[in-house]
Amino acid sequence: MYEMHFAVPMAAAVLNTINTRLDAKAVAAILRHSQAKVLFVDYEYVRLANGALQIVADAGAPVPPVAVIDDIDRPTGVRLGVGELEYEALVSDGDPAAELPSLADEWDAVTLNYTSGTTSAPKGVVYSHRGAYLNTTSQLLSWGVGTEPVYLWTLPMFHCNGWTLTWGMAARGGVNVCIRENRAADVYRAISDHGVTHMCCAPVVLNILLDGIGEARRLAAPVHVLTGGAPPTAALLDRVERVGFKVTHGYGLTEATGPALACEWRHEWDLLPLPERSRLKARQGVSVLSLADTNVVDNNTMASVPRDGKSVGEIVLRGSSIMKGYLDNPEENDKAFKGGWFMTGDVGVMHPDGYIEVKDRSKDVIISGGENICSKEVEEVLLQHQAVADAAVVAMAHPHWGETPCAFLVASNRAAGVCEDEVIAFCRERMARFMSPRKVVVVDALPRNALGKVDKVKLRDAVRSLVLPKATSRL
Amino acid sequence: MYEMHFAVPMAAAVLNTINTRLDAKAVAAILRHSQAKVLFVDYEYVRLANGALQIVADAGAPVPPVAVIDDIDRPTGVRLGVGELEYEALVSDGDPAAELPSLADEWDAVTLNYTSGTTSAPKGVVYSHRGAYLNTTSQLLSWGVGTEPVYLWTLPMFHCNGWTLTWGMAARGGVNVCIRENRAADVYRAISDHGVTHMCCAPVVLNILLDGIGEARRLAAPVHVLTGGAPPTAALLDRVERVGFKVTHGYGLTEATGPALACEWRHEWDLLPLPERSRLKARQGVSVLSLADTNVVDNNTMASVPRDGKSVGEIVLRGSSIMKGYLDNPEENDKAFKGGWFMTGDVGVMHPDGYIEVKDRSKDVIISGGENICSKEVEEVLLQHQAVADAAVVAMAHPHWGETPCAFLVASNRAAGVCEDEVIAFCRERMARFMSPRKVVVVDALPRNALGKVDKVKLRDAVRSLVLPKATSRL
Repeated sequence: MYEMHFAVPMAAAVLNTINTRLDAKAVAAILRHSQAKVLFVDYEYVRLANGALQIVADAGAPVPPVAVIDDIDRPTGVRLGVGELEYEALVSDGDPAAELPSLADEWDAVTLNYTSGTTSAPKGVVYSHRGAYLNTTSQLLSWGVGTEPVYLWTLPMFHCNGWTLTWGMAARGGVNVCIRENRAADVYRAISDHGVTHMCCAPVVLNILLDGIGEARRLAAPVHVLTGGAPPTAALLDRVERVGFKVTHGYGLTEATGPALACEWRHEWDLLPLPERSRLKARQGVSVLSLADTNVVDNNTMASVPRDGKSVGEIVLRGSSIMKGYLDNPEENDKAFKGGWFMTGDVGVMHPDGYIEVKDRSKDVIISGGENICSKEVEEVLLQHQAVADAAVVAMAHPHWGETPCAFLVASNRAAGVCEDEVIAFCRERMARFMSPRKVVVVDALPRNALGKVDKVKLRDAVRSLVLPKATSRL
Repeated sequence: MYEMHFAVPMAAAVLNTINTRLDAKAVAAILRHSQAKVLFVDYEYVRLANGALQIVADAGAPVPPVAVIDDIDRPTGVRLGVGELEYEALVSDGDPAAELPSLADEWDAVTLNYTSGTTSAPKGVVYSHRGAYLNTTSQLLSWGVGTEPVYLWTLPMFHCNGWTLTWGMAARGGVNVCIRENRAADVYRAISDHGVTHMCCAPVVLNILLDGIGEARRLAAPVHVLTGGAPPTAALLDRVERVGFKVTHGYGLTEATGPALACEWRHEWDLLPLPERSRLKARQGVSVLSLADTNVVDNNTMASVPRDGKSVGEIVLRGSSIMKGYLDNPEENDKAFKGGWFMTGDVGVMHPDGYIEVKDRSKDVIISGGENICSKEVEEVLLQHQAVADAAVVAMAHPHWGETPCAFLVASNRAAGVCEDEVIAFCRERMARFMSPRKVVVVDALPRNALGKVDKVKLRDAVRSLVLPKATSRL
C-alpha cells in the first residue's frame, strides 16, 4: 500500500485505499462506486476480496482485474484464480523507461477515501495533489518531524492516506516499519528492533500498549506519538508519558485530508502540573499551516462565537487541504460546504488563546477503535430486521474501543418482542464487526423532540447507566 | 522591515526591501525602476534616503512620499522634511476595521528584490505569494525549525526576505531578535539575553564571531546556524562547532527565493572524522521541498551529467519557488530560463548520493561579505574613468570578506599610465564601498579567448599570486 501511494499517482491514476476492517458488502459497494480499474489485494485479504468481487459480479457490474500481493519473505502462493496477476511479477514486467504522464493541474484528484461504504450513496472523499502536498508538509511541520524519522505504521494507511504521512515519510527520508496488527508485543518489538521515533494512533491503541506491559517498562528512547480520533485522557497521558511516549494531540477528519488541527505545545506549559497539562493537551488545537482558516461559528449566521472557551459553535475549516468533494454525490457536497467553509458537524469552543476544543461530536458518528461509524448506517441495517419497527443508535463507552454502538429498538410486535442476541447476530452478518452494536435495548418508543426527530441527547444520557454484556466488553 | 513583510502584502501591495549597503545612486535606480509608491526609511538611513530621493527628483522622476521609522525606545526625532510621515503615527491613524483586499491569484507578486541596482536595467526579482509560501515551509522543514524558535537576525531581511524566514518565524511562533550590526559582542549578548536558538549568516559572519572570542568560549545552549553564500571551510566548521554552533549549509540565489539546496545531514555522517564531515557539509546538497526538481546539466543539450561527483555541468532549478521573473526586463528573463529551467550560471557536479556540489561560480559574480557583486557593473564604472581603456574585474580572496573585487585595467595612454589609488577612489565615489575594487592591476592588454571574450579563468589564476594592499586587507 505504501508503494501504491507513489506508483498510482505517477501513473496519473487515483488511489483508493480500502479499509481492511470492512465486510465484503461494503468493499463491493466501494469497488462499484469508485469504478475501480484494477484491485490490488494483500494475500491476507484474498478471501474478503473474493467475497466482494462475487457481489460485484452478481450485480452484473464490471469486475476489475486483480493483482495479489504475496508475502515476499514467505510466499503463500495464494491467488484469486486462474489468469490473475501477481504484484511482484507485474512490477518486474513494467517498462523502466516508460514515460510518466505529467500532471496537468495540481487540483487533479490523487486519492479517494471512503468514509463509509454500506449505504446506497457511499461518501468517497476526493483529495487533490495540491491538498495532499500541502497537508503533508503541514503535518511534518506541526508535528516537528525532522530528517530520517523511523516511523511505525500503527495507523492504517487507509485512514486519510496515513494522515498523509505515507508521503511525509518519503519527504523526510524516513524509514517505514510495518506490522500486521497493533499487538502490544509486536509494537514494542518493532520499536526496539528498528529504533522507532514516530508513530500515529488513536488513544485506544495507547490503551492496548499499556495493557501489554508492567508499570516498570520504559522505552530506551522517546517515541513521538500523534494521536487523534478522541482526546487522550489525563490518566492515559500520564501513564504513556511515563513509559516514554511523547504525545501530540491532533484533530481531523477524512474530509480535511487527515489532521486539520494540532494541539501545538508551548514550552511554557511544560512547567504546569499534569492535570493542567492534560487539560491543555486534550484541546484539539490550532489549524495546521495548509488550512487558510479555522473557526468556530454559529452555523446559521456563520458569525464567529466569542473566544471565551465557553460559547459553543460548529467547527468550520477552509483551505487547500480540504477535500475537492465527495465523488458523484452532489447532495452531500451541498450539505458539506457553506459560504466556502467545510462544516465539520463537530461542536466546539474557541479559547482566548486561539485553541479550539471539541465539546460534542457530530451526533451521527461513533468512534470505535479509531474507526468512524455512521449511526445512520447501523440504523438502516437494524430496520431491515422484521422484528424491528424503529431504531436509533448512539455511542456507548467501551473500555477498550473507546466507544461502541448501542441500539435502541422498538419492536414491530410488542407482544412478540425482540431477541437482542439475534439482532446483534443479524447485524454482524450484514456489516463489519466493529460497526455492529454490542448492546441492544428494547424500548416502547424512541424519545422525540418537538420536530419529531429522535432525541439522541436523551438516549446518550440513558446509555450512561447501562452495562455492556460481559462477552462484548473485551477486545 | 519585519512588520512590512506582513502589512504590505495584506494591503495587496508589493514589498521591495532595499539593501542598506547600497549607495544613494543605486537606491535611486531601484526607487525609479520599482516605481515605489511609498518609501519607509529607518532613522539610521535618512541621509542615504535623502541622497537617493534627490537623485530621483533631479531626474524629474516622481518622488514617493516617505515615512520615517524612528527608534521607539529612544526617538531621535530625525525627519526627512516638512510634511513627511512618521511610521508609528501612520500606523496609529490606520483604520483597524479596514477591509483587507483578498488575493485574486496566488501567483501574484508579493515582493521585489533587486540583485543589483546601478546599471541601466536593474534586475528586480519578483516573488509570488505561492513561491514565498512554499519556500518558507520548505526552509522550515529542511532546516528542522520546530515551534517557538528564538531567531537572531544576523542575516539582513533584505536578502531574499531573510531567506523567507521573516514569514517562517511567524509560521513557527518564533521570537525575532534584531540587532543593528553583526558585531561579535552584540551577537553573543543577544544569544545569551534572549536564548537564541537559530540564526542565518554567510561564513564571513562566523569568522567575525570567532575573532571576537577566546578559544575557551562555549555557548550555554547550541545555536543552529544556516549558512550560505560560500561553503564553510573545514577549519571554520571545526572552530564554530566547538563553540556550540550547529551549522547547516545551504545554497541559493535571489532568483530561487533564497535557499534552493540544503545539505541535509545524515545521521550516519556524525560518526565520520571532522575532515570527512567538513567535506560532506561543504557540498550544497539536495533540493528543498518547494523545488520540483534540481539538476546538473550540459547547458547546451540540457542532458543530465553523470552522477559521479566529477562531471561538471550547470546547476539548474525549477519549481514554484523560482522567481516569476525579472521586473520589466524581457532580455534578462529570456537568458535566465531554458526549457522551463532556471539557469543558475553556477557550475557543479552531482554526487552518486544525489547531493550537488558547486565547483565554480557564475563567472560574473563576486561574493563579498555575503553580498553579491556583479563584476560587469564594476567594469562599467571603471570604463567611465578617462585613464581606463579596458577593464575586467574578478574575485580576489580576502581574509575577512571572503572575496573582494580585483580590477585589471588597460591604460588609455600607456605612457601616462593609471594611478591605482585614484581609480579606487573614483569607484568609491560611484558605487557602494563593498563593491569597489580593493586591488587594481594595470596590464598591457586583457587576455582574450578565441571568440574575443576576456579570459577570466586566466585572470583568476593571476589573482592567486597577488597580495592585497595592507590597508584594504582589514574589515
